[in-house]
Amino acid sequence: MQLNSLRCVALAPVACLAIAACAASLASPKAENSAPQALIEKARTDTAGLEFVRRLTTEIGPRLAGSKAEAAARDWSMRELKALGFTNVRTEGFTLSFWSRASESAMILGDTPQKLVITALGGSPSTPAGGIEADLVRFETLAALEASPPDAVSGRIVFIDEVMARTRDGSGYGIAGEKRRRCAEVAAGKGAAACLIRSVGTQPHRMAHTGIMGRKGATGALPAAAVSGPDADTLAQRLKTGPVKLRLDIQVETAPSAPSGNVLAEIEGGDLKDDIILLGCHLDSWDLGTGALDDGAGCGIVIAAAKLIDDLPGTPRRTIRVVLYGSEEVGLFGGDAYARAHSGELSRHVFASESDFGAGPVWRLQTRFGDGALNHAHELFEALAPLGVTPGDNTATGGPDIGVLARSGVPVVSPNQDGTEYFDYHHTPDDTFDKIDPDTFRQNVAVYAVMVWHVSEGGWDLRRKADAVEP
Amino acid sequence: MQLNSLRCVALAPVACLAIAACAASLASPKAENSAPQALIEKARTDTAGLEFVRRLTTEIGPRLAGSKAEAAARDWSMRELKALGFTNVRTEGFTLSFWSRASESAMILGDTPQKLVITALGGSPSTPAGGIEADLVRFETLAALEASPPDAVSGRIVFIDEVMARTRDGSGYGIAGEKRRRCAEVAAGKGAAACLIRSVGTQPHRMAHTGIMGRKGATGALPAAAVSGPDADTLAQRLKTGPVKLRLDIQVETAPSAPSGNVLAEIEGGDLKDDIILLGCHLDSWDLGTGALDDGAGCGIVIAAAKLIDDLPGTPRRTIRVVLYGSEEVGLFGGDAYARAHSGELSRHVFASESDFGAGPVWRLQTRFGDGALNHAHELFEALAPLGVTPGDNTATGGPDIGVLARSGVPVVSPNQDGTEYFDYHHTPDDTFDKIDPDTFRQNVAVYAVMVWHVSEGGWDLRRKADAVEP
Repeated sequence: MQLNSLRCVALAPVACLAIAACAASLASPKAENSAPQALIEKARTDTAGLEFVRRLTTEIGPRLAGSKAEAAARDWSMRELKALGFTNVRTEGFTLSFWSRASESAMILGDTPQKLVITALGGSPSTPAGGIEADLVRFETLAALEASPPDAVSGRIVFIDEVMARTRDGSGYGIAGEKRRRCAEVAAGKGAAACLIRSVGTQPHRMAHTGIMGRKGATGALPAAAVSGPDADTLAQRLKTGPVKLRLDIQVETAPSAPSGNVLAEIEGGDLKDDIILLGCHLDSWDLGTGALDDGAGCGIVIAAAKLIDDLPGTPRRTIRVVLYGSEEVGLFGGDAYARAHSGELSRHVFASESDFGAGPVWRLQTRFGDGALNHAHELFEALAPLGVTPGDNTATGGPDIGVLARSGVPVVSPNQDGTEYFDYHHTPDDTFDKIDPDTFRQNVAVYAVMVWHVSEGGWDLRRKADAVEP
Repeated sequence: MQLNSLRCVALAPVACLAIAACAASLASPKAENSAPQALIEKARTDTAGLEFVRRLTTEIGPRLAGSKAEAAARDWSMRELKALGFTNVRTEGFTLSFWSRASESAMILGDTPQKLVITALGGSPSTPAGGIEADLVRFETLAALEASPPDAVSGRIVFIDEVMARTRDGSGYGIAGEKRRRCAEVAAGKGAAACLIRSVGTQPHRMAHTGIMGRKGATGALPAAAVSGPDADTLAQRLKTGPVKLRLDIQVETAPSAPSGNVLAEIEGGDLKDDIILLGCHLDSWDLGTGALDDGAGCGIVIAAAKLIDDLPGTPRRTIRVVLYGSEEVGLFGGDAYARAHSGELSRHVFASESDFGAGPVWRLQTRFGDGALNHAHELFEALAPLGVTPGDNTATGGPDIGVLARSGVPVVSPNQDGTEYFDYHHTPDDTFDKIDPDTFRQNVAVYAVMVWHVSEGGWDLRRKADAVEP
C-alpha cells in the first residue's frame, strides 16, 4: 500500500509519521480529527451541493435530453464547477435522436366526458391530429395482455392497470417498469390502437409519471401514455359498469439528431494521479419536473463530496473525476458515450460510483470488487458505519450510466439510498427542489466523501483477484 | 316535549312505555339498543354514502357550476335519491352567469424558459390571445401590495407569495383566501397587467388551487391565476438573482346565463312533518378535480345519515330535507336561490346543518341555538361524546350555503371536521375519491344521524328565547 505522506501527515499528523501507523489510521476512521471525521463534520453543514441543485433546478429547470435547456445546463455546470475549484472542466459531446412532447390529453367520451391526467411516454409517436378514439380494454398485468387473444385487443386502447409496489430498495420499479417498456410493443403485435399504463410510481396524487418506453430512445410501436393513479382508479371503476371510450391525443416533436454531452471535471490527484476515481450522476432530466431528485441531487451529492476532499489540506492521491452524464433518461446515451470515448483508459478507472436515486439516506453499501479486495469492502463498511450504512453484498451494479464500466471490469459500489418515497416524485412534475431533505442529502455527501477518501488515500487495487498479492 | 310513541317504542320498547322514561332514554344515548346506538352501529359499515360519492365522482366527475356536467349530476342524483327511498325528490332551478377555463399556461421567459404550473382563478377574464408578457413584481402579502406605490406595479404582473397556514379548524383559509379574492381588484387599481398568487392551499405538490376570485362569480378586474407552491418557490428564488419576465396566457369561456339548480329530497316526517330539518351539501365542484372532498363527501354524508334514520323502524317525527345545492363554488348561488324560493317557510326550518369540509373526523360541535335552547346543545354534546366530538360554543355559522338561513334565524350547527389535510386537496386536480378515508367519512355519517335523530325525535324548539317556556 502506498501512502501520500503529505496528505496523510496533514490529516493525522502524529499517527502518520510511519507508514504502518498511517495504514492503521485508515482502518480506524473513528480516530478523532481524522480526515473522514472532518469530512463528516464538514458535510453536516455543506451548502455547495444543495445550492448546486437549487440553482440548477430553478435557474435552468427541466433539462430534456438533447434540448437547449440541457445544453444550457452543461454551460452553467461548467461555470459552476470551475468556480468550485474543479480542473479540466470540459464537455464531451455526442448526438442522439430527439423526442419532445408538444401536447397531450385524454378524455373519457360519452354523456359525462372527463379529462384524464396523462403524460406521453418518452418515445411515443404522435396520434393522428385530433387524437385516437377507441374503446379501452383493461389488463391487470403485462402478462395478462401477453396472454390475451388478439381479437380482444385489436383496434382498442390497451390499459395495463398494474400497481407498483412501494419498497425501500426500489425493487418495485424494475417489475412495474416492464409494462412501460413493453406495453406498446406487445399491444402493437395484437393490433391495438394505443397503450395506456397506470403510472410507474407510488404516489397517490393526480400526476402521471413519464419515462422512456423503448430502448435507446427508439420511437415506440404505438402511441403510449401513463395515467395518474386516481385516474386509473376512475377508469377501472367506469369499466365495471360498461364500456369506456377514450380520446387520446398525443403530439410530439422529433429530430433525427440533437446535441448532448457529458460534463467532466476533476480534482487532480497526487502520486497516483493517473488513477481515476469516477463519481457519476446525470444532468439531463425529464421535462415535467425540474429534475431535482432525478438527478440534480445526485450531481449535487458527488460534486459536494469531491469538493469536500479538495478542501482538505494537500492533494488527494488519486484523481477524482466527476461526470455529469447527458441524456441518461432516454437510454443511457451519456454512459455509452463516455465508455466509448474513454475506452483506452478504462484500466485506469480504479473505482466508480454513481448517485441517481434521489436524496434519501444511504442505508447500505453494495460493492463489486475483485475477490481479493473484499477486505477493502470491509474497511469501507467500517468507515461508513458511523453514518448508519450497513454492509451489503458484492453484487453492485454501480448505477445506470456506470453499468457499462462495471461490465468492463471497473470496480464499483452502489451506496443504496432509501427509495421508499423516491417513486412518489420520479418522472413527475413534482420532482422539484423542495422535495429534497437537506439532512439526508448531506448524509449522502458524507458517505461519498468518506468512501472516496479511503479509496484515494488507501491506493487500493479493488480489481484484485483472490490469489493476487496487493502491491 | 312531545314524543313520537310509535318510533320510540320501536327503538326502546321497554323504556318508552311512559313519556318520562322515553325522555330519559333520549338523554342517555349510551343505553344499549337505543336508536342512537343503532345509528352508530349502522354507520360503521355504511356503504350508501361512500358509494354515492364514488359513483358521483367517477360516473359524472367534475361538476362546474352551470355546466352540462352539473346538470347531469342533478339528474343522476335525483335517480339515486329515489332509489335510496327519498321522497319529494325534485330540482329547483335557477340561472347564473357561466365561467369556464378553456386553456391556461404560464412560462418564465428568457434564456432558460420554464413552464409553471398555474390555474386560472374562477372569474378571471381572458388575456389577449397569445398571453401577456410582463415583468413580475413580488409581494409578501396582500397588505404589502396595498401599501405599494402604483409605479412599482404599473404594467407588471403582481405576484402575492403569501403562504397559507395549516390548521385543524381551517382558519388559515379565510386569511389566505383574501389574496385570491382581492388581488386583481387591488392590482388593477395600481395599473397592473395581471395577478398571480401562491395557491391558497397547504399541499407541497405541484398543483395549483383554483377558486373564485370575486364575489358572486363576477368577472374579475384582471386576468388572475394561482401558481403551485413549488413554482412559487422557483419564482421567489429567480427574483433573488434578477428580473423575471412571464408570459401568462389564460383563455376562458363565459355565457351570460346558464342553468343550475338545487336538488331536494326528503324523508317525510310523522306528527311534526311540517317541521323541516335541513341537511345541506353542494353538488357542484371545481373543474380540476372530481369534487370528492369538496363536496361529494358532504352530500354522501348527509344522504347516508338521512337514509340511516329512514331505515329505522317507523317514521321520524320531523321531515328531514336533504338539499344538494348547486353553484356553491362560484358564489353561493344555490344557497341564495333556496332561501328565496323558501322564504315563506323559513319559520318551519327548525334546524339546519351543512357538510362542506371534506371527510375528516368531526372533533367539535358548534351550535347556534336560542339562549333558551342551550340545554339541547348539551344534550347533543352528550349524545356525540361517544363519537369523539367535543362541545363547542354557540357561534356556529352553519356553513356556506345555509349561512343565509342562519342569518334568518334558523337554528344551525357546525359539526367541525378536522381540516388539517383538507387544503392539501381543496380546489386542485387531486380532489378525487381515493382521498376520502372511509372510517372518518363514516364517523361523520354517525354524527349527522345521531344529531338529526335527537332533533327530530326530541321535537325541540331550538329558536327558543331565554325567557320562553318550551311547550
